[in-house]
Amino acid sequence: MFQDSSFSALPEALRVSGLGALRVGLIGTGVVGSGTCQLLARNADLIAQRVGRPIRLVMAAARDLHKAAQVVGPDVDLVSDPLALVRHPDIDVVVEVMGGVTLAKTLVLEAIAQGKHVVTANKALLAEHGSEIFAAAQARGVVVAYEAAVAVSIPIIKVLREGLAANRIHEVVGIVNGTSNFILSKMAEGGQDFAAALRLATELGYAEADPSFDVEGVDAAHKTALLAANAFGADVPFAQVHAQGITELDPWDMACARALGYRIKLLGIARQQAEAIEVRVHPALVPEGHWLAQVQGSMNGIWVNTDAAGPTFHYGAGAGSLTTASAVVADLIDVARLGPAGGPARVPHRAVQPTAIRRWPVLPIGQVASRHYLRFAVHAWPELLTCLPDWLQSVGLDVQSWAHVRHPEDGHQDALVVLTPSLSADDLAARLELLRHQSGGVVPVAVWRVEDLPCSAM
Amino acid sequence: MFQDSSFSALPEALRVSGLGALRVGLIGTGVVGSGTCQLLARNADLIAQRVGRPIRLVMAAARDLHKAAQVVGPDVDLVSDPLALVRHPDIDVVVEVMGGVTLAKTLVLEAIAQGKHVVTANKALLAEHGSEIFAAAQARGVVVAYEAAVAVSIPIIKVLREGLAANRIHEVVGIVNGTSNFILSKMAEGGQDFAAALRLATELGYAEADPSFDVEGVDAAHKTALLAANAFGADVPFAQVHAQGITELDPWDMACARALGYRIKLLGIARQQAEAIEVRVHPALVPEGHWLAQVQGSMNGIWVNTDAAGPTFHYGAGAGSLTTASAVVADLIDVARLGPAGGPARVPHRAVQPTAIRRWPVLPIGQVASRHYLRFAVHAWPELLTCLPDWLQSVGLDVQSWAHVRHPEDGHQDALVVLTPSLSADDLAARLELLRHQSGGVVPVAVWRVEDLPCSAM
Repeated sequence: MFQDSSFSALPEALRVSGLGALRVGLIGTGVVGSGTCQLLARNADLIAQRVGRPIRLVMAAARDLHKAAQVVGPDVDLVSDPLALVRHPDIDVVVEVMGGVTLAKTLVLEAIAQGKHVVTANKALLAEHGSEIFAAAQARGVVVAYEAAVAVSIPIIKVLREGLAANRIHEVVGIVNGTSNFILSKMAEGGQDFAAALRLATELGYAEADPSFDVEGVDAAHKTALLAANAFGADVPFAQVHAQGITELDPWDMACARALGYRIKLLGIARQQAEAIEVRVHPALVPEGHWLAQVQGSMNGIWVNTDAAGPTFHYGAGAGSLTTASAVVADLIDVARLGPAGGPARVPHRAVQPTAIRRWPVLPIGQVASRHYLRFAVHAWPELLTCLPDWLQSVGLDVQSWAHVRHPEDGHQDALVVLTPSLSADDLAARLELLRHQSGGVVPVAVWRVEDLPCSAM
Repeated sequence: MFQDSSFSALPEALRVSGLGALRVGLIGTGVVGSGTCQLLARNADLIAQRVGRPIRLVMAAARDLHKAAQVVGPDVDLVSDPLALVRHPDIDVVVEVMGGVTLAKTLVLEAIAQGKHVVTANKALLAEHGSEIFAAAQARGVVVAYEAAVAVSIPIIKVLREGLAANRIHEVVGIVNGTSNFILSKMAEGGQDFAAALRLATELGYAEADPSFDVEGVDAAHKTALLAANAFGADVPFAQVHAQGITELDPWDMACARALGYRIKLLGIARQQAEAIEVRVHPALVPEGHWLAQVQGSMNGIWVNTDAAGPTFHYGAGAGSLTTASAVVADLIDVARLGPAGGPARVPHRAVQPTAIRRWPVLPIGQVASRHYLRFAVHAWPELLTCLPDWLQSVGLDVQSWAHVRHPEDGHQDALVVLTPSLSADDLAARLELLRHQSGGVVPVAVWRVEDLPCSAM
């Protein structure tokens, strides 16, 4: 079984390391697992030419062995017990693409205990249990690689940890959930409501049967926590990461935002403050001239701002079988090179050496300052058209920009939309309460944050 | 002098490698050199936290020692003879940011012979003499790192060689010369001609005193050759790389292209064909919906298309003092990690192991097929408005798209612009000669290539 035919076929001169093939055990033969099999087979020669040693899938664990056999082909040993794979002496590196947290955590920790490197696409696992897993890997001297856990076709973990390693990274703002961005793109194009756009996403395969992790912002929050960890060298307590999805977003707000020169996107935001970090996911208005406003459909885009390199932007597909496999196999290539080289040659799991990891407090969402978009229904309060700016000023909200937007079909929806100065959500809530009190009940029907990212970057 | 104060100040726990500081010798204290000094000093603590050992500038070579002393500060030894630096036993890595080819080549080869790693921003040197330099480095077991030679804030060499290492890279298309893109942006915005836009670029510091390398496409060709080498694992003979700059571009063509839904950009194109590669630089029409069409001012953007990850796009500043230093220092960080680890841990200089490097023939520009944009002057041949499509068809050029564009000020400039089917430049020239013959002298006044990059990627 483990006779290394691909290695014998490799020209002698390519075997730079004197090592045989890197032997891979795969847990999970679904969408990502099958893509990984396919890519390792299809580009085997190229991969060996890059690394100087072959990377060979030798074993896979799956629940349905019959189905899995069709995925992995005849040359790969199949087991139904993933623990047997993790403990097998002929495996150098375990690829965990089964998903879920509980069993995956057990398996990853056991693989580490067995001295095996781990490559995983499991953002939930690492966002929630990264500290424990990375500490175990560090102690055991193995690598846990996870480019496939964030934006897959965009090697953003490598960009943050290595490409921009000379920089202090000020902020990372990303569209990192393709399902949500697809739905928002449809809502923006066609004025469909969330439910209709979600149905379309499901029909076209862009949304899973249970889309709640995607549309409620949890998946994006996992990814944003990992981005923050790598941008700031931080241990990010996931429980403190604010996640708000797109389920309550009205397409009418997307049209009103457009009247002010903005698009609404689901953003993952990681920003360094003086003594804290912001790590949050929510829909936000982005200037239409910014790159992030142009990311359409199921694609991902990530904007990074740094002290020396300035702003950079990175774009690509954030999901898919071969697309995710691209990141899994890139990590395997790194492991093939750096696994034998030992600790000092490797990039730390969260960008800085473990002793330098900071546990910055995550700023509570209520204390995060930004401009805010407020939508008021003109129908309910016609006097708003003349009085609102004064009323807002009387509670300390000087309107910086506003528009009266008439609904194309339904006059009841006509809106007065305004952009506030920058202030915290808590402060805004207090002032809006004062407004309600002073005005006899005026409240905005929608409130969204504005992310005024600089557009010179486009 | 070499007492390692920054290392003693580093917490014991950070010293993962048991190694002292990586000792850097800097050749060149101009724009990039001074940025490198500044960044190494400013982010010294962060860099050490990332690497696990400090990176220290210990020596610099410069022609004007008095001026250089102000750049590097009192703790750095200064020498006027760069060979003395290159041969100094206390230097681990030589940073070459002096530019030029002849002396730089001597110094880099001598540094390699001395067993020192090299970090360089010198695109001309590596595009023209990379084969010799990389072979010498390979034989001596040292690294030559050159992220700073291409798009500086965009770690595109790392993205191609590592982030997308699982992929076959089909094509890389980039805006990689900020000076040219600044000039083109001004020509497109204001309708200024090339000379006026160049004057503005020079006044604002976006163009050098002698801008010929930038505006004639040579700088972009150097960079594109390096992109091709890393995309395809190729030894690219620079003499075969076609370079055409922007000096002959008429802003009126930019307006006419816009009427067809295109922008004109100076593109560096590296594309894999079955048995050859395209490596070429010239102005080209890009669909206005494509990311590359949106890159404005002095910024760079690079679009990469691959077999597994699909298309990705990367954007950032392509020049500047700290911006370039970001890439230099990132390379130093890699050298600090991978220098001691030895060959198998390192990424090959041109993406694949030296024995796997291919010397693909570079397709002569006349044989490269694409659609072409042709502009005809209506003033000279009023009958064109009715006859041209038939005439073109009679020489086998079925017009795929056309527009009659009236000049806002000068009727003599009124144009009929057409897009041809895809065909080689040689083929097009033959057909246009036939047209001239058959029509009694009709020739296009401008011919530019069209790069029909897929816009679903935006």
